[in-house]
Amino acid sequence: MVTEVASCTFDRLELDSGATLAPVEVAYETYGELNGARSNAILIVHAFSGDAHAAGEGGWWSSMIGPGKAFDTDKYFVLCSNVLGGCRGTTGPGCINPETGCPWAMSFPQVTIADMVRLQRMLIDHLGIDKLLTVSGGSMGGMQALEWAVSYPERVASAIPIATTARHSAQQIAFNEVGRQAIMADPDWNNGNYYGGRLPGRGLAVARMVGHITYMSDESMREKFGRKLRTPDQFEVESYLKYRGYKFVDRFDANSYIYITRAMDTFDLTQRGALPTLFESNEARFLLISFTSDWLYPPYQSLEIVKALRGRNCDVAYCNLDARYGHDSFLVEVEQQTEVVRGFLASTFREAAANA
Amino acid sequence: MVTEVASCTFDRLELDSGATLAPVEVAYETYGELNGARSNAILIVHAFSGDAHAAGEGGWWSSMIGPGKAFDTDKYFVLCSNVLGGCRGTTGPGCINPETGCPWAMSFPQVTIADMVRLQRMLIDHLGIDKLLTVSGGSMGGMQALEWAVSYPERVASAIPIATTARHSAQQIAFNEVGRQAIMADPDWNNGNYYGGRLPGRGLAVARMVGHITYMSDESMREKFGRKLRTPDQFEVESYLKYRGYKFVDRFDANSYIYITRAMDTFDLTQRGALPTLFESNEARFLLISFTSDWLYPPYQSLEIVKALRGRNCDVAYCNLDARYGHDSFLVEVEQQTEVVRGFLASTFREAAANA
Repeated sequence: MVTEVASCTFDRLELDSGATLAPVEVAYETYGELNGARSNAILIVHAFSGDAHAAGEGGWWSSMIGPGKAFDTDKYFVLCSNVLGGCRGTTGPGCINPETGCPWAMSFPQVTIADMVRLQRMLIDHLGIDKLLTVSGGSMGGMQALEWAVSYPERVASAIPIATTARHSAQQIAFNEVGRQAIMADPDWNNGNYYGGRLPGRGLAVARMVGHITYMSDESMREKFGRKLRTPDQFEVESYLKYRGYKFVDRFDANSYIYITRAMDTFDLTQRGALPTLFESNEARFLLISFTSDWLYPPYQSLEIVKALRGRNCDVAYCNLDARYGHDSFLVEVEQQTEVVRGFLASTFREAAANA
Repeated sequence: MVTEVASCTFDRLELDSGATLAPVEVAYETYGELNGARSNAILIVHAFSGDAHAAGEGGWWSSMIGPGKAFDTDKYFVLCSNVLGGCRGTTGPGCINPETGCPWAMSFPQVTIADMVRLQRMLIDHLGIDKLLTVSGGSMGGMQALEWAVSYPERVASAIPIATTARHSAQQIAFNEVGRQAIMADPDWNNGNYYGGRLPGRGLAVARMVGHITYMSDESMREKFGRKLRTPDQFEVESYLKYRGYKFVDRFDANSYIYITRAMDTFDLTQRGALPTLFESNEARFLLISFTSDWLYPPYQSLEIVKALRGRNCDVAYCNLDARYGHDSFLVEVEQQTEVVRGFLASTFREAAANA
């Protein structure tokens, strides 16, 4: 697999808020090779805490992307970039504000899912890709895939939004808000001005622990931990959450946590019109996937989108996969996903070639 | 309704841990009047953050307890005490350790659900009640009701455990652990030594916010908050959680939070034998209630207990009530609960009188 780790800087990016970021940098990786017709490009969009390193050793979706895998890098050119507002190479609150020479921190402008996608579009323009074969991701990645299909329908032959929603429910907002409050309750957060000092690690760890519970299912937690003890005074599940919480602090920026969860919470496709009207004469093909045990992004949220697409005679397939791992299923339930994604991509590629 | 607010001090209480509390105080309230045969006494046991003030103005279960209500104080003598380890009048970590003259804080001995119930038994002994007509409560109250039925079967004519479990699942432990970690992450917690100083209010508020989400259902949150905005930058649900979180700090002690959630997590009836064998020849009557939308204490946990009771031919009724409010249903879904509780109590009372 040919892998390229790269970064690209653009002069300016206009944001939904009216603010402008100038310049803006985006970190990305590519796997496989772009064909002569530039018709085999797939954009992978990551979830909340992901990054551009989607495939290869340690890649967050390496089980799905690679030679012979669902997103087959022997056939397709796969691209993944870190989202705007992130902390893994793309411009975010931890970067230096060129006007002040100091980190943006909480003076970073609010970003939206649409802003993230706008930057991705600039990136594929830069790479000379007119039309993506597909854009796919789970959770917040699914929101970006939907945003692509709605905002730039002429630029995508298909979209594969997984375990996602057209808008966060009160419960989803609430869990994110608890995470933000945990961070902001940490005195080391210091209104966001902690760069170069002590990180708000305790608050960020607590936020991550809440997140982890919501990513698993009651059943998968019972299977993995049950009531097993780690020490006489500590359950395995307690030790696991604490470990994962504090490990997260090493790789994620607390202010990015606040900005990106905020982007998820404010995302609401229905603000631009009823869902069916948004997909009016959309010619992209859709494959939506949800998971039976996912209680954070329950199947009914995917079904709502599927119904809207069907109501406009769009080309849509939907699989509610029987899976035990809750929201994490999109990362670990590889076998069933591979089957449906592989078939969908092959037919999309054939159709696109026939229409070319 | 005759109401009495009282407190009682006992010389000593032996704990499961081997430690002894001497003396130990218990705060309680009673409603209605004990009949001559002392056969109409009902013990109400509260949930995690409850207290002895169950009925009357501002009582946490006043919708269920009072003249003509489910627990009818015109007929029954209703008693509710604050749990051991609490912070509302009963001995807990915020009380003075007589040996040091300072608050116990984290040197308070670990307490269990069985310890709480042992203290309640001393209280009914003190009040001259041989046998309770019933013991009832939701959530952690349900655990105490089960503990009563298993540890002192000869002292209860019946038990009504509501929205509860014989043991916490990994997910239930995990949510409690996040709350504890949020408290302990607050520098003002200071290893539990904050009495007389600044309270660990930020940590406790975050812990409470997590709790609140788990008490509601996806559906009830959507109905109550949806995506409504409180200000242009704040969702209603965010404002609500923050308000409830910080309000909790005024009435609850952070160390009690740690001790009581720990008691819930370590509660495990099955450690004393398989559930069916625990109920072997138990002559109490049982009414178990769960709620369809309660995802924190899902119906399958009640059903597990019901099956064990049925397997031993115990007298058990079970209602899985159709309710929207999640775990909070036991507090707010009054109408259906009243119907089943009233009938169950009346027949239990008749039967007990016939057997007397």
